[in-house]
Amino acid sequence: MSAANSIYILRIDCPDAKGLVHKITGVLYHHDSNVIRNDEFVDRTTGHFFMRTEFSGNIQPDKILQGLRGLLPDNSTISLTTTQTKKVVILATKEHHCLSDLLIRNKFQDLNMDILAVISNHTLLQELTERFSVPFHFISHEHLSREDHETEVLKTIQLYQPDYVILAKYMRILTPAFTSQYTNRMINIHHSFLPAFIGANPYKQAFERGVKIIGATAHFVNEDLDEGPIIMQDVIHVDHSKTASDMAQAGHDVEKIVLAKALKLVLEDRVFIKGNKTIIFE
Amino acid sequence: MSAANSIYILRIDCPDAKGLVHKITGVLYHHDSNVIRNDEFVDRTTGHFFMRTEFSGNIQPDKILQGLRGLLPDNSTISLTTTQTKKVVILATKEHHCLSDLLIRNKFQDLNMDILAVISNHTLLQELTERFSVPFHFISHEHLSREDHETEVLKTIQLYQPDYVILAKYMRILTPAFTSQYTNRMINIHHSFLPAFIGANPYKQAFERGVKIIGATAHFVNEDLDEGPIIMQDVIHVDHSKTASDMAQAGHDVEKIVLAKALKLVLEDRVFIKGNKTIIFE
Amino acid sequence: MSAANSIYILRIDCPDAKGLVHKITGVLYHHDSNVIRNDEFVDRTTGHFFMRTEFSGNIQPDKILQGLRGLLPDNSTISLTTTQTKKVVILATKEHHCLSDLLIRNKFQDLNMDILAVISNHTLLQELTERFSVPFHFISHEHLSREDHETEVLKTIQLYQPDYVILAKYMRILTPAFTSQYTNRMINIHHSFLPAFIGANPYKQAFERGVKIIGATAHFVNEDLDEGPIIMQDVIHVDHSKTASDMAQAGHDVEKIVLAKALKLVLEDRVFIKGNKTIIFE
Amino acid sequence: MSAANSIYILRIDCPDAKGLVHKITGVLYHHDSNVIRNDEFVDRTTGHFFMRTEFSGNIQPDKILQGLRGLLPDNSTISLTTTQTKKVVILATKEHHCLSDLLIRNKFQDLNMDILAVISNHTLLQELTERFSVPFHFISHEHLSREDHETEVLKTIQLYQPDYVILAKYMRILTPAFTSQYTNRMINIHHSFLPAFIGANPYKQAFERGVKIIGATAHFVNEDLDEGPIIMQDVIHVDHSKTASDMAQAGHDVEKIVLAKALKLVLEDRVFIKGNKTIIFE
Repeated sequence: MSAANSIYILRIDCPDAKGLVHKITGVLYHHDSNVIRNDEFVDRTTGHFFMRTEFSGNIQPDKILQGLRGLLPDNSTISLTTTQTKKVVILATKEHHCLSDLLIRNKFQDLNMDILAVISNHTLLQELTERFSVPFHFISHEHLSREDHETEVLKTIQLYQPDYVILAKYMRILTPAFTSQYTNRMINIHHSFLPAFIGANPYKQAFERGVKIIGATAHFVNEDLDEGPIIMQDVIHVDHSKTASDMAQAGHDVEKIVLAKALKLVLEDRVFIKGNKTIIFE
Repeated sequence: MSAANSIYILRIDCPDAKGLVHKITGVLYHHDSNVIRNDEFVDRTTGHFFMRTEFSGNIQPDKILQGLRGLLPDNSTISLTTTQTKKVVILATKEHHCLSDLLIRNKFQDLNMDILAVISNHTLLQELTERFSVPFHFISHEHLSREDHETEVLKTIQLYQPDYVILAKYMRILTPAFTSQYTNRMINIHHSFLPAFIGANPYKQAFERGVKIIGATAHFVNEDLDEGPIIMQDVIHVDHSKTASDMAQAGHDVEKIVLAKALKLVLEDRVFIKGNKTIIFE
Repeated sequence: MSAANSIYILRIDCPDAKGLVHKITGVLYHHDSNVIRNDEFVDRTTGHFFMRTEFSGNIQPDKILQGLRGLLPDNSTISLTTTQTKKVVILATKEHHCLSDLLIRNKFQDLNMDILAVISNHTLLQELTERFSVPFHFISHEHLSREDHETEVLKTIQLYQPDYVILAKYMRILTPAFTSQYTNRMINIHHSFLPAFIGANPYKQAFERGVKIIGATAHFVNEDLDEGPIIMQDVIHVDHSKTASDMAQAGHDVEKIVLAKALKLVLEDRVFIKGNKTIIFE
Repeated sequence: MSAANSIYILRIDCPDAKGLVHKITGVLYHHDSNVIRNDEFVDRTTGHFFMRTEFSGNIQPDKILQGLRGLLPDNSTISLTTTQTKKVVILATKEHHCLSDLLIRNKFQDLNMDILAVISNHTLLQELTERFSVPFHFISHEHLSREDHETEVLKTIQLYQPDYVILAKYMRILTPAFTSQYTNRMINIHHSFLPAFIGANPYKQAFERGVKIIGATAHFVNEDLDEGPIIMQDVIHVDHSKTASDMAQAGHDVEKIVLAKALKLVLEDRVFIKGNKTIIFE
C-alpha cells in the first residue's frame, strides 16, 4: 500500500467542526500528496461531516493516518485505501439479465471488481456462469429449512472472503441472521421504484395499480426487507398496453443498468452510509 | 354540432367482439367522413375494446350515433363530440406554481380549456388570479365542519357548471360525498410518484427514506385518497444534498408540467377510464 | 405459413384514401381472423397511409393477400408474415459492449433474432463470440483496398443470407456499393445524438463543445454516413468533470440499450421506412 | 457587505498548485468563518483550479480578500459576494412561454433575481408584462438598420444597469458589437439540443431529419451564434406523429424549464466559465 505512484482514497466521516477541511488537507499537504479530487458534504440535519479525497504521492499511509487521528474526534471513521479491485460473490436465482451483465463487465474489467463465485438455489444459470470461467455453486433450498439453507450459502460465501455480496435477482427472503453478516456490504437490486411496491411481484402490483412509470432500485440490504439505504434508482415510462409480463421484460434493462451504476459507485469507494441514507460523491 | 367542417371525436368502449373496427369504420365511411386519426386498444385481461376516432366531414351526428347503436352491444359507451373548449373550475390552497402555470396557459389558450373560476380556502392566491381577470372565491374552512365547508365549495363550483374540476395543490382531504359529485371529472396533482408516499408531506417522507428520485402524479380523484386512476407521472433525480424543502422546490416544476400534460390529454378527450386504470391515446 | 394458430403480421403502406381501414379490416373479418392489435397512421404532409395489424386465425395467407390487392392501389406495399425469428449477421471492430449485449440476448432469446455469425476486422472479440458458440470471421482490412475488403466482408455475409445486418460498433466507413446491398436492412448504432457530432470521435467532439448531454442513435444505414432513417435515440446527462474518455465509457450503456431497443422494434416488424424517416408502432 | 450574519460566496479560479484548498480554507478558518458548503474542481486538461465556498460569519470581506491575494497567483480570479438578488433585463419577441414563466417566478421570488424591464421588438407581450407591473419597452426593428436597432436596445438596457441580460426567445440575430457588451452576462435559450440544429427553425429541421428526441439548450451568448458556453440542456422524446408545429409546442415546456434551471445556477453564482465550457457546482 505504499508504492510510489499509487492512487489513494481517503474517506472520513465525523461530527462537523470548524476548520475540518483546512486541517485534513493540511495533513495531506505536509505529506507531499497531490490531491486529484476532493469532495465534502456536511449534513445540516445531523451535523455530520463527510469527505472523500483522491490523491497520489510517494506517501507512508500509516503516518498520514496517525496525523489525521491526532486531529479528528475519537468517534471519526477514517479509511485510507488504494484503488485495488474489490472481491465479490454474486447470489442469483433464475433470471439471467443482471448476472449476464455483471459477468460481461467482469470479463472486460468494466467495474472495479473481481467476481470470485456465483451461488444459486437453481441450476439454470450454471451453464452461463461457467462459460465465463467463474465458479458456480448450486445450493438447493429444497428439503432445507430457511436457516439451514442460509447456513450453507453463508459457508460458501465465506470460502471466498469477499468484500461485497451482490444479490443479482436473488429471489429468497433473507433472515437478519444472514444479512447482519454483511452489513453495509451486501447490495440488492429491487425491481421497483422503492418504496413503491415493496415485497413480492412488484411488476404485477404496478400493473394492477395502473402506474405510468416503473423503476428499479439498488440498495444496501439491512434487516428489514427493501428498507436499506438506497444507492441508485431509475425509471422508464410505460402505458396501458403493457401487461405485467411486458413490464417485467421492459424492466430488465433498467434493473441491470441501475445495479451496474450502483456497483460502480460502491466499488470506487464513493458511497458513504449514514442511517438509512447514502451520501454519494459521483 | 353539425357544422360543415367541424372536427369530431368519436369514443367507444364496449366488450370486444370480432369485426368491431370494420363495422365502426363502416358507419363512418358510409356517412362520408374523413378519418384523421384512429386509435384502438383491446385490453386482453378484461376483454374490453376502446376506440377513439378523429374525423371531419359534413355529417349528421345523430345519424352516426344511431348507426353505431344498431351495431354495438347495449352496454357500450359511445360519445360523439366536437373539439370545443372545456369549462373548468380550479381549487387551490396556498402554493402558486400549478395555478400560475394554468392561468398562463389559459390566457394564451395553450390548453383546450376555459378557466371559469378559482376557489381557495386561503386568500394568498387571490391577487394572482385577479391579475388574470379570473373570478376568485375565498371560502375559508375555519369555523366550519368539513362537511359544511365542502357544501359551500360545491355550491360555488355548481354556479359554473364546469366539465372538469382541477385540484391544483388543493391541500384539503375530500370526503366521498364531495368527490362522488365529479366522478371521472376531477383531476388532482399529487406531489409524489404514487403509490410511493401516499398521504401528507410526501417530500418529507421522501427525504427521510433517502430516495434518489422524486416525482409527481396526476390522477382522477375517487373515493380513496390518492388511489384514483393515474393519468401521467414523471420524476426528477435528487441527491443527498437536497433537504425536504429543496426537494419540494425542485418538485414544483415537475408537478406543474405533469398536471398540464395530463390536462392536455383529458381535455382533448384522449383518456378512457376503466376501473382504476386509464387507457390513453396520445 | 398457414398453420392453425400462427400469429400473423400484416403491413400495408400506400397513398391515403377514404375507407382504407374499413376495407382492409373487412378482408380480415371475412377471412375469420382475430385482430390482436391494429395500428395505423396517416402522414398528413405526404398523404401516405401506414397500417400494421397483428392477428391470429386459421387463414390462407394467399387468399388474404389476393383480397387486399384487389382493394388497394397498385403502388401499395403489402406484406403478410409470421412472427418467425429473423436471421442476422453482426459486424463489429474492437469494442465489446454492444456485441456482448446482443450475444447475451441471443443466447436467452430476448430478441426475435438468431445471430448466424460475427464478422470483424480485428480479432479482439473472437474469444468472446466463440464462448457463445457463434461463428466468428476475422477479415483484416490490412493490405486491402477499401473495396476489396468490403468485397470479402460481403461475400462472408452472403454465405448466411441474413434478414438484417447489424453494425455493432463497426468502425469502418462503408461505401454506397456496400450499403446498397442491404438497403433498409442494415442497422447501425452511432455514439452520439444525431445529427449532432456526425462523423469520427463524437465523444471527443462532445467534450470539446462542453455539452451537458450525450446520446446514442440507432438508425438504418443509407448511402450518406450517419444520415439514414433514425429508429431510436436516447441520452444521458454529463457534467464538467467528465473527460472525453469518461463520456465514452458512460455512453456505452446507452449505446447498447438503444441498439437493443431499436432491434426489438425492427425484428418485430414494427418499423416502416418512408424517405429518411421511420414510422414506428410500438 | 459586512453584516453580521450574511452568507458569503467566495469564488476562485486560478492555475492549479499544491495545497490550494488547504491554504484557501486556512484564510477562511483564521477569519472565523463557518463553511456551509465547499466545492472544488481541477480541470486536468488545462490544469486549472475552480473553487466555490459558501460561508457565514461576522467577517471583514476586505481582510479575507487581502489574505487570499497574498496566497494566490497574480492571474487568479477571486470574487467574494453576498447572496443578494441579481438585476436582470429580459429581451423577448413574440413567444410568451419563457417570459411568462420568468414573470411568475419573479413575482413569487422563486429565482434570485429582480426583473427590471422587458424589451421587445413586438408589442404582443406588452399586456402580459404590464399585468405583472414590469416596465415594457417596445423597440421596433422596422425602418432601422440592425446596428441602429441594437443601439436603441442597448441604450434601454443600460438605463437599468443589469447584472444579466436574458434572451427569452428573442428571435433577432445579434452582432458581436452588441454581445460583447455583456460577455458572460447574457444568457440565451435555444430551442434545440445544441450543437444539433444550429440556426433558424430548429423544430422544422428536427422534423425533416426525423429525430426521435428534441431538446433545448441554455447557454451564454458569445460572438458566434449558438456557440457560447452551455449551461443546461434537456430533451423530450417525440415520435413520427408529431409535426414540426407539434414539436415546437411540445418543446415550449422543456425550453422554459431549462432556461429557469440554468438561471437558478447562474444567479446563485454556481457557474464558472472557462473557454467555451462551464464548470457548475450544483
